[in-house]
Amino acid sequence: MSLKLSILGCDSAIPTINKHQTAQLLNVNERFFLIDCGENTQIQLRKFELSFQRIHHIFISHLHGDHYFGLIGLITSMHLLGRKKELHVYAHAALKEIINIQLSVSKIDLNFPLFFHVIPEDSEIVLFKDDSIEISNILLNHTISCSGFIFKELKYDRKIVKENVEKYNIPYDKIIDIRKGFDYIKENGDIISNNLLTTENTPAKSYAFCSDTRFFSNIISKIRGVDVLYHEATFCHDLKERAYETGHSTTKDAATIAKEANVKRLIIGHYSKRYSDLNQLLLESREVFSNTFLSQSGDLIDFNSI
Amino acid sequence: MSLKLSILGCDSAIPTINKHQTAQLLNVNERFFLIDCGENTQIQLRKFELSFQRIHHIFISHLHGDHYFGLIGLITSMHLLGRKKELHVYAHAALKEIINIQLSVSKIDLNFPLFFHVIPEDSEIVLFKDDSIEISNILLNHTISCSGFIFKELKYDRKIVKENVEKYNIPYDKIIDIRKGFDYIKENGDIISNNLLTTENTPAKSYAFCSDTRFFSNIISKIRGVDVLYHEATFCHDLKERAYETGHSTTKDAATIAKEANVKRLIIGHYSKRYSDLNQLLLESREVFSNTFLSQSGDLIDFNSI
Repeated sequence: MSLKLSILGCDSAIPTINKHQTAQLLNVNERFFLIDCGENTQIQLRKFELSFQRIHHIFISHLHGDHYFGLIGLITSMHLLGRKKELHVYAHAALKEIINIQLSVSKIDLNFPLFFHVIPEDSEIVLFKDDSIEISNILLNHTISCSGFIFKELKYDRKIVKENVEKYNIPYDKIIDIRKGFDYIKENGDIISNNLLTTENTPAKSYAFCSDTRFFSNIISKIRGVDVLYHEATFCHDLKERAYETGHSTTKDAATIAKEANVKRLIIGHYSKRYSDLNQLLLESREVFSNTFLSQSGDLIDFNSI
Repeated sequence: MSLKLSILGCDSAIPTINKHQTAQLLNVNERFFLIDCGENTQIQLRKFELSFQRIHHIFISHLHGDHYFGLIGLITSMHLLGRKKELHVYAHAALKEIINIQLSVSKIDLNFPLFFHVIPEDSEIVLFKDDSIEISNILLNHTISCSGFIFKELKYDRKIVKENVEKYNIPYDKIIDIRKGFDYIKENGDIISNNLLTTENTPAKSYAFCSDTRFFSNIISKIRGVDVLYHEATFCHDLKERAYETGHSTTKDAATIAKEANVKRLIIGHYSKRYSDLNQLLLESREVFSNTFLSQSGDLIDFNSI
C-alpha cells in the first residue's frame, strides 16, 4: 500500500519556460488522481514519464486559468490517443460548459465516457469513495469559489499472523472478519483473541491540498493530523496585505495552518513570480513550522517515508 | 521594410516535449501578427524571445484545439502582465463565446480592449488593411470550417534619386506624388519624367498560410505568385486516403498547390506524429516542387532573402 505525490507544477499565474502552473498527481496504490491542470500539464506528465491514460479522476480546485487551462488539451489528447476508459472530472459547475462547448465546436465525439461531478460551492461532501480511499472537498477562501481536497486512505485491514492462524485452525472463510479485527469464536465457545491472530497494518495515510486561499482558520479542523499538507504560500509575510487582497496566503499563514492542524509535513507552493530565490519563502515558513518543504516540479513525495 | 516569419510550432494534434502545435508569428515592419495559437504558444514566444505584448492581431484558422488552445492562456497572461493596448482576434464566431465564458467564470475584467472579428465561413473578405499590409481569409477544405490567410504587403512607394530631385528643383510638397510614380510638370509645362527622379523600391512581399486543408485547387488562384506559401503536409503521399478522410494534405498535395500557384517558396508543416524523420516528407514534396523547406520550431524566415 502506498501514497506518492508527484509535483508537476507549483508556480502561480503566469507560466514561463521554467515555471509551471499548479498540477499534482497523487498515486494511491497505482491508481492516479490528478489535482489541478494548468496549461502544459500534459507535457509535464510526459516529462516525468507519468502515463496520463492511467488517470481516471481529475480534481479542479477552481476556475482560474492557472489551475485548469491544460484540461481541455489533456482530454483531447486522451481522445486522440484512443482512450476507451472512463474519465471523471470533479469541478465547479461552469467547467462542464467550458469543456463541452470546446468539444462541440471541434466536433469531437469522445471515444471514452467523460463524467462531470459538480463540487458544491457552499458545502463539503465526499466526492469519491471506494474500498481504499475517500476524497472530500474543503471550502477555501479565495476571490472566486475555490475548493481544497482531502484524500484519506481508509484504515487498512490488519495483517494476519500466519503461524497462529494455522495453529488455531481458523477456517478460511473467517479470514476477512479476522483481518477486520474480530475475535474468533470456536464451536465450543472458546474465544481466540484477534491480537493472537493479527498485527497492526501500516497506518492509513492522508493528504490535504489547499490552494488557492487566504489564511482561513476553518480549514484547520478538517485537515487535522494529515501526513502531508500542501498549502499555497504565494507571498512572503511582508506582503500579507497584498496576499489578502488577492485571495492568497503568505508563508506564515500556511505555516500557521500547518502548526495549528498538527500536520506531519507542510509543502508550500504557488509562488509569486517575484521570488527568484524560493529559500526566503521556505525559511520564513520554517520559523513557524519547521517541517516545511518547498514543492518543485519533478518532486516525488513518498508518504511511507514521512 | 521587412517581412519575417517565426515558426513557433509546426506539429499536429498532440503536443509532446519536443513537438509544438501550430503557431507562427509574422513580423511586418516590427508589427506582429500571430497566426494560430496551440497550447503552450506563450512559452514558445518566450523561448524565442518574442514579446507577446507587441502582438496586436491574432488570426485563428479554425477551432480544433491544436490551433487555439493556447489563446486563453496568452490573453490571460497579457492581462496579468498589465497590458493596456488593444488586441484584435480574428476567428470563427464560436471562439468569442469560448473566450468570454472563461474570462467570465474567472471574474477577469481585462485591462485592455479585446476585439473579436468574425471570419466568415463561406466568403472571403479583407480582414485587416492599413497603409502597409492587407490580410484576407482563404476558404479551405477541412473537417470543420477552416480559414487560410493571405498577407499582402502593399506596393512600396518608389525610392527618391536625391541628386536629381535637387538638380531639377522639385518642390518639397511634390515629393509624395513623385514617390507614388507621377512625373513632375514644371510651371512652363516641361515634364520631368518620374524615371529620372525615382527608382523601383523593394518589391512588396506576400505570405499565404494554408492549414488545415485537404488538397483544394480553389486555393491556387488566390495565392498565385506569393513569396512564401505555408501549406500543411500532414502525411506522406502513400497515406493520401487517410489524409482525405481526416481533412488533411499529403506532401504531394502541398507541393502541387505550390507548383500550380507558382509560388517562390513552399514551407510544409503540421506533421503527423508518425514521422520521426521529417526528411521523407521533405524529399517527397521536392519531387513535385523543388523549392520546398520544412518548417521547424525556432525557424526565422526573412522574406528579403528569398
